Amino acid sequence: MPELQPIYVAGQWRAADSTGTFQAANPATGETLPDAFPISAWPDCDAALTAASAAFAELQLLPPARIAEFLRAFATKIEGQAEVLCATANRETGYPLKPRLAEAELPRTVNQLRQAADAAEEGSWQNVVIDSKQNIRSHLTALGPVVVFGPNNFPFAFGSASGGDFAAAIAAGCPVVAKANTSHPATTKLFMEAAAAALAETKLPTATVQLIYRTSHADGERLVADPRVGAVAYTGSRNAGLKLKAAADAVGKPIYVELSSVNPVVFLPGALAERSEKLVDEFVGSCLMGTGQFCTNPGLLVFLKGDATDAFLSAAGKKFAAAPAGALLSSGVADSLRRGVEVLQQAGATVVADSGAVTQPGFRCPNTLLRVSASQFVKNSHALQTECFGNESLAVVADDLPQLLAVLDQLEGNLTGCIYSDTTGKDDAHYAPIAAKLRLRVGRLLNDKMPTGVAVTAAMNHGGPFPATGHPAFTAVGIPAAIKRFGMLACYDNVREPRLPAALQNKNPTGKMWRSVDGAWSQGDVA
Amino acid sequence: MPELQPIYVAGQWRAADSTGTFQAANPATGETLPDAFPISAWPDCDAALTAASAAFAELQLLPPARIAEFLRAFATKIEGQAEVLCATANRETGYPLKPRLAEAELPRTVNQLRQAADAAEEGSWQNVVIDSKQNIRSHLTALGPVVVFGPNNFPFAFGSASGGDFAAAIAAGCPVVAKANTSHPATTKLFMEAAAAALAETKLPTATVQLIYRTSHADGERLVADPRVGAVAYTGSRNAGLKLKAAADAVGKPIYVELSSVNPVVFLPGALAERSEKLVDEFVGSCLMGTGQFCTNPGLLVFLKGDATDAFLSAAGKKFAAAPAGALLSSGVADSLRRGVEVLQQAGATVVADSGAVTQPGFRCPNTLLRVSASQFVKNSHALQTECFGNESLAVVADDLPQLLAVLDQLEGNLTGCIYSDTTGKDDAHYAPIAAKLRLRVGRLLNDKMPTGVAVTAAMNHGGPFPATGHPAFTAVGIPAAIKRFGMLACYDNVREPRLPAALQNKNPTGKMWRSVDGAWSQGDVA
Repeated sequence: MPELQPIYVAGQWRAADSTGTFQAANPATGETLPDAFPISAWPDCDAALTAASAAFAELQLLPPARIAEFLRAFATKIEGQAEVLCATANRETGYPLKPRLAEAELPRTVNQLRQAADAAEEGSWQNVVIDSKQNIRSHLTALGPVVVFGPNNFPFAFGSASGGDFAAAIAAGCPVVAKANTSHPATTKLFMEAAAAALAETKLPTATVQLIYRTSHADGERLVADPRVGAVAYTGSRNAGLKLKAAADAVGKPIYVELSSVNPVVFLPGALAERSEKLVDEFVGSCLMGTGQFCTNPGLLVFLKGDATDAFLSAAGKKFAAAPAGALLSSGVADSLRRGVEVLQQAGATVVADSGAVTQPGFRCPNTLLRVSASQFVKNSHALQTECFGNESLAVVADDLPQLLAVLDQLEGNLTGCIYSDTTGKDDAHYAPIAAKLRLRVGRLLNDKMPTGVAVTAAMNHGGPFPATGHPAFTAVGIPAAIKRFGMLACYDNVREPRLPAALQNKNPTGKMWRSVDGAWSQGDVA
Repeated sequence: MPELQPIYVAGQWRAADSTGTFQAANPATGETLPDAFPISAWPDCDAALTAASAAFAELQLLPPARIAEFLRAFATKIEGQAEVLCATANRETGYPLKPRLAEAELPRTVNQLRQAADAAEEGSWQNVVIDSKQNIRSHLTALGPVVVFGPNNFPFAFGSASGGDFAAAIAAGCPVVAKANTSHPATTKLFMEAAAAALAETKLPTATVQLIYRTSHADGERLVADPRVGAVAYTGSRNAGLKLKAAADAVGKPIYVELSSVNPVVFLPGALAERSEKLVDEFVGSCLMGTGQFCTNPGLLVFLKGDATDAFLSAAGKKFAAAPAGALLSSGVADSLRRGVEVLQQAGATVVADSGAVTQPGFRCPNTLLRVSASQFVKNSHALQTECFGNESLAVVADDLPQLLAVLDQLEGNLTGCIYSDTTGKDDAHYAPIAAKLRLRVGRLLNDKMPTGVAVTAAMNHGGPFPATGHPAFTAVGIPAAIKRFGMLACYDNVREPRLPAALQNKNPTGKMWRSVDGAWSQGDVA
């Protein structure tokens, strides 16, 4: 039995109060990795929350520039540890070192942290509104410690101690209690080490970031409902997420969950006639990249029937069959994908093509392209929207436009929806009614572009109607919007000016912060 | 048995599918009013939701100026019916015609509707964010039909077919299914008549506004969780609200609840030494106004012990004893207030003064001022925070500053918190630690001002941490912020320009809409 790894609570690496242990596995080989990690009992959570509360009180008194300083120092330390981070994540996720880990996800992660640093320092995320005549002023401000549950599929960019939710919560001024994803605990531990070093260097409270690896389900539900918690961010499986959501909702605690999405993509006939081969490549590349393990993976294709559709599916199927089956993040992901494909088949879908029996070691399932008629989809739309997280996609083929629209009417909430159309306008008559329906069911509507890429820009929405997320007005990606999730609205009515937070005083504290003053946005002072 | 009043569903006044009936009462006399109203069975809800969905689809295609036109026409019709509205509300609420109904609440209501009209037309509430280089653009847009449950205490300004939630939902482009408060159904019916006339005049879909009066609890929970509903707004009792919240949360439906608030007011020693008599008048006026039936009624006073505190309470007690006990909105409100005062007494509070046995007819309780020590409050803080909706307040007296801060540590979330302090700075040492704690527990922090007034301004926050509301980042009062509650974030990624909503196209559609373009707020076009 290997020695148990320590947790990081209240500024100390220390042994957990553990009720059990777990080890991660190398998805590419299936082998158990050597490090053993503790399953924390409630006292670990309790200690972390007490320390987080004290850190929160301290952070309230510091200028935002201090938080920015930490985020930047952390980004630099991550870059300094890039080699070991990538090697460790490679072992724990099976993702290739290059380009995925070293050239895509790590740069994205430090970029997010630096964007968050800039946003924290500049302050516009606070959405300051000033009524100077009545002296009523409001802004968003940190709502308390945030518990972050990171997903399995982005060990860096959505990691609980490094990713988008982490960066947003810290930028808002909220300490983070990171709950590692159990598929990459060693990677998360490395981030915690870098964060602790950056906290020490920038003299922030040592409990601004803390790490536990795992708890019982009951303790997880107790954790998110604890009065010391300000908010919760969770990205992961629907079942576990709904339990945490119910626990937090019952006590009125904001919880931002990202649960599931099949990301419908509609291919209109003109687009197929115009550039089918290119679209096959785009789709197959997007669907099989990272073994399809993206929240925005194109899992549901929608077509009108015809030879062009058959040809598209036949060509895509050949590529699915020919591509090697990539590694999946865990045996659980592989089991869940196999079960999902079975559910789709039992609900009437048939296999267009797959890549055949898996021969390589590790956690793998065949690349699988399925097909079902729109009439069957409408009859059994719940089962046929089962998210198959991984290298799979289901094509729905409609007889005509009304049937295609009926398919869209059955869709649950999704992160994204796409429409591919002819570039010269031949699909325009179809576009409008399809877009009108799709738009209401997705957070991001795309044209002529696969949904897999999620640009880190202020205009991004990585969110959507339930069950994609728990509230359709918030995004997990995009700064400053993602930061706003961790703010509470604080209004000051008739408060004497020296008592106001700097952001609400007459003088613009940074000269860069956008504020809405008497109905006009400005970077200036209040007259 | 009087004839049953009709409901307004799908553009028709028609008989309800009723499972029972109810009648309101005149709170000033206790007499049952003549009109009988139906308790709707599920088919009425179902029909309303179907009609609302169709209206929603139609509204999506109309320019916002059309919605503004309706809101303005409605405001004008309300003014045209002011006399009958006020007379009816006077009978159903016991509120005086003047100043309350005719001079305060009615003007406020039409002002809100007109502000909402302006905001809908101008468009800044949509929070447009444009990344012109990557062509990613997002805004908030109507999320679907909204069910509004209005409270008993503002028949006009928070009425389900006339008030703040109604105006905000309509301004966002969401049809409203109004569930009348059962204490003022005839008033709500008059608003529905005016709304229907305004809808006809401005040619909006007839099901843009619909009215039912009451349902079973089970149907209420089914209603808020229905897939056709976009969001829910509820203001009312905590128990009923929590049940609706649980039903909506379980299916990821945004529900904005306003549940309870005791609105702590801290009187610092310097303020009492400086202007005790004035503060007694402010407090008594605020607490007994409208028989204390405000969400922001000062229900919890916090003092440091001393002769000045005793003198304040003695003077306030005399005024409580001398003032006539006003009418309460229903026998249920009176029962609940009596029970609440008993709970406080059982938890250790003693009566400073009350106005004695009630002799007037109608639903009334004595004006009651209570007192408890801070040490007792800390021991039994849950019971001692029981909201006593009405003409009551509880004073908590602390031995010293640490004990006072310990009281604040026990506070649940509130809409407001106030601190009165000496104008020359003598209380400043106390102010900072008190404000730091109070701020986290309230949506609005006031200085030297009672919380009862809620200005309709963009900077207002009428919200707060749970259980004041269900999410601390949203406000029910203040335009445009209140409108944002009824928006979903809709992002367009690589969408061709003519296909974008007008608000997201390069040309600013109104020339007045504030948009964040490439990081800078502007009213201009995208270059």
